[in-house]
Amino acid sequence: MSANLLKAKPKIINIGLAQFADTIRQSGAEAIHLDWTPPAQGDLTLNKILLELQDDYDQIEQANSQAIEKVLAAQPVWIDVGPALEMIPGFSENTVLHAGPPISWDQMCGPMKGGVIGGLIYEGRARNKEEALALAGSGRIEFAPNHHFGAVGPMSGIITASMPVIVVENQENGNRAYSNFNSENNRKALSFGAFDQDIQDILNWQRDVMAPMLGAAIRKIGGLDLKGIMARALQMGDECHNRHIASTSLLLKMLLPTLARLDLPGSRLAEFGDYLMQNDWFFLNFSMAACKAAMDAAHGFPHSTLVTAMARNGAQAGIRVSGLGEQWFTAPAPPVRGIMFPPFGEEDANPDMGDSTITETFGLGAFAMAAAPALVQLIGGKVADAIGFTKSMRQITMVENGSFSIPNLDFAGTPTGIDLRAVVETGIHPKINTGIAHRRPGYGIAGAGITEIPLSCFQEALKEFAKHHSARS
Amino acid sequence: MSANLLKAKPKIINIGLAQFADTIRQSGAEAIHLDWTPPAQGDLTLNKILLELQDDYDQIEQANSQAIEKVLAAQPVWIDVGPALEMIPGFSENTVLHAGPPISWDQMCGPMKGGVIGGLIYEGRARNKEEALALAGSGRIEFAPNHHFGAVGPMSGIITASMPVIVVENQENGNRAYSNFNSENNRKALSFGAFDQDIQDILNWQRDVMAPMLGAAIRKIGGLDLKGIMARALQMGDECHNRHIASTSLLLKMLLPTLARLDLPGSRLAEFGDYLMQNDWFFLNFSMAACKAAMDAAHGFPHSTLVTAMARNGAQAGIRVSGLGEQWFTAPAPPVRGIMFPPFGEEDANPDMGDSTITETFGLGAFAMAAAPALVQLIGGKVADAIGFTKSMRQITMVENGSFSIPNLDFAGTPTGIDLRAVVETGIHPKINTGIAHRRPGYGIAGAGITEIPLSCFQEALKEFAKHHSARS
Repeated sequence: MSANLLKAKPKIINIGLAQFADTIRQSGAEAIHLDWTPPAQGDLTLNKILLELQDDYDQIEQANSQAIEKVLAAQPVWIDVGPALEMIPGFSENTVLHAGPPISWDQMCGPMKGGVIGGLIYEGRARNKEEALALAGSGRIEFAPNHHFGAVGPMSGIITASMPVIVVENQENGNRAYSNFNSENNRKALSFGAFDQDIQDILNWQRDVMAPMLGAAIRKIGGLDLKGIMARALQMGDECHNRHIASTSLLLKMLLPTLARLDLPGSRLAEFGDYLMQNDWFFLNFSMAACKAAMDAAHGFPHSTLVTAMARNGAQAGIRVSGLGEQWFTAPAPPVRGIMFPPFGEEDANPDMGDSTITETFGLGAFAMAAAPALVQLIGGKVADAIGFTKSMRQITMVENGSFSIPNLDFAGTPTGIDLRAVVETGIHPKINTGIAHRRPGYGIAGAGITEIPLSCFQEALKEFAKHHSARS
Repeated sequence: MSANLLKAKPKIINIGLAQFADTIRQSGAEAIHLDWTPPAQGDLTLNKILLELQDDYDQIEQANSQAIEKVLAAQPVWIDVGPALEMIPGFSENTVLHAGPPISWDQMCGPMKGGVIGGLIYEGRARNKEEALALAGSGRIEFAPNHHFGAVGPMSGIITASMPVIVVENQENGNRAYSNFNSENNRKALSFGAFDQDIQDILNWQRDVMAPMLGAAIRKIGGLDLKGIMARALQMGDECHNRHIASTSLLLKMLLPTLARLDLPGSRLAEFGDYLMQNDWFFLNFSMAACKAAMDAAHGFPHSTLVTAMARNGAQAGIRVSGLGEQWFTAPAPPVRGIMFPPFGEEDANPDMGDSTITETFGLGAFAMAAAPALVQLIGGKVADAIGFTKSMRQITMVENGSFSIPNLDFAGTPTGIDLRAVVETGIHPKINTGIAHRRPGYGIAGAGITEIPLSCFQEALKEFAKHHSARS
């Protein structure tokens, strides 16, 4: 054998950097390139942590299976609509909630400041941009992340006291989650930082016409199972983050008999119909609240490495982990690859923003990209790329969620439950679908695309997890 | 070279029957099996015809491109609703339209007779089954295929004088097409041969409540583009024959503002909402009328081999060809492979029935199966099979319709325009998605599945085409 080995032309298997294989090939030898990176990108500290956590493998696995069971068993039901001040425990008249990890007023990005300005004008606390800026910087407003109040909001995520919110109860676990209503309309939206009179008109109409009507309907119905709508929508080209055409249409179909029986003037229902005609994202905020209700139930298992929140505030991206309490692990918010809506160009794009990544945290959005190949076209991709997105997310998640099956994967479940360890070990970033806000306040929607949560959030969280874990064990 | 050839072990390429290759392999030689069948299954007459038609290739191609251009350019718009007697030219009080090619009362299958019984009771022409049977057999009722009146109806396809019909205008061509309203409800439907009081209640409600409301709405809107709805639905898991969840929901979303502004009592609109809650097939009949409006525009090009209708009456399947006028080419209706709904078994299944194959004739339904992989599960298939269905239909169709793109095929268009010659030459049967009626009158829906239009319809049509063609040339 060894004689043959010496005589034969060498076949070289190259592991890691592709250019080594190229060099070997240039020298005339055969080389097979294996696409491999060392665990944790070869970082010795992180490798040591991953190895040490192996010693407590069973304990962590047990905690993770308890946590993920909460995720899979979640029964998010839309039960009510009402003003944030009344619906969200701990909300005060001075509270202004925002997306992502904590951030001070002066550090906020342009579109988030735009959202705050719009919110304060809407509340009657300021008459114009200047008054709103003065009030926001006065110290009288209590800014806090939505996530600290069981809430989520897309993009800037601004929720103020009299804004109507969607109330979702996880009827398996008893916890509640909240979201504002979607305000996307002709490419302008408070959530994207616009705050002009058009936006005020929409917000006022939502408060005075839409919210009372939807609240009356949902209380009459006695609750609507959101998981079922999301599961059906996944069969219909939605991924429950950036596409909501199916879910929005299904929601309307399910509400209509009750809405009609409220016997309101026809014009009220007609206005709601008009609104939905130009808003195919209406269900997004329902989807987000449902995901939040599921993930909060899985939060707080001391030995669990399950990621329970990923969110961005337009300046920073951050994550929370089941076993790491209220702490955020942050990194600069990434840019978004995608398409810019004319007349805007890449220079207009704000970095990534919003709580909507709660959908990916729950295994939907980009994790379910195979269900919505239309979205991968935003970055010039094809169906195979969309399927590849979902398959790659299997490598960093704990289970497939049988409640959410993807036709294109022969009805396999969505990859669900991001394992902190797996992200650090493989270096695979969780992918996310998202909108792009204009970087200056007052402009609104500038594009849509795909991005990733930075790896360092997970690396820092793992270091902290190792500390907590060894202290507790 | 020849010396080498003799010394070398033979490699054999086997064409046609796979067992020859197996025999060769058993004898120790290498054999590659090529899956090939001779043109027209080796039928000498048909091969001669195909060859002769090659002489007029340009003339036929020119006629086909004129015909297919009509198909692609079609603009089916839903414009009105009203009683068949008023809306459909040539309709009389004694007219009863049915699905498929012409058939006499005594030759009709059980569920079609059930539909006739239900229709005559609904019209007040009979008080019960016995009276209806007597009237139907009396010679006073004028039975005719829907297709002869520009109409289409699913399954039994029964349309009677006072039944409200959907009026669709092909605004590119000026022709109109008609369909009844879908009556699927808790697995009982007139179209599947049921005729009891529940069915009468639905038909009466459709006539007295739903049709006037929808008619008022569509006239106020001034017409609704059905092609756009169908194109969107194809992005959402519908194939526009056996799945209509997306299209039905989209239709409702588009109608709501106008329906609400009719200012009818809330209960009216609520009843329509209730009806849609239990009928995910509501859009089927709109889809069918749209397809009929498109295909009729392509009918009557003397040298065209385009198939312009495929339909089944539960006893026979039949086709019509653009260049062959009003003539039908028929064969016994095939059985349907699929699932039977308990308590029914295969012995309860009626052979294939309905005009709904107008959707496949237009390149949708089973031709667009790649858009709706859920349906291939009916016969135990996977996503790859669904994609295979659509790809195989490319071999017998003239073009891909860019208006209807299929996400799973990287947004390629639907295979459209069945070429009579291609079906005969390749022996590939057009596949169709369909429901299964119970074979006895009065029962209703027994299952759903997939079948194929028999090859002999196309073979007979090609023979006739050759005769006409040589007489005209």
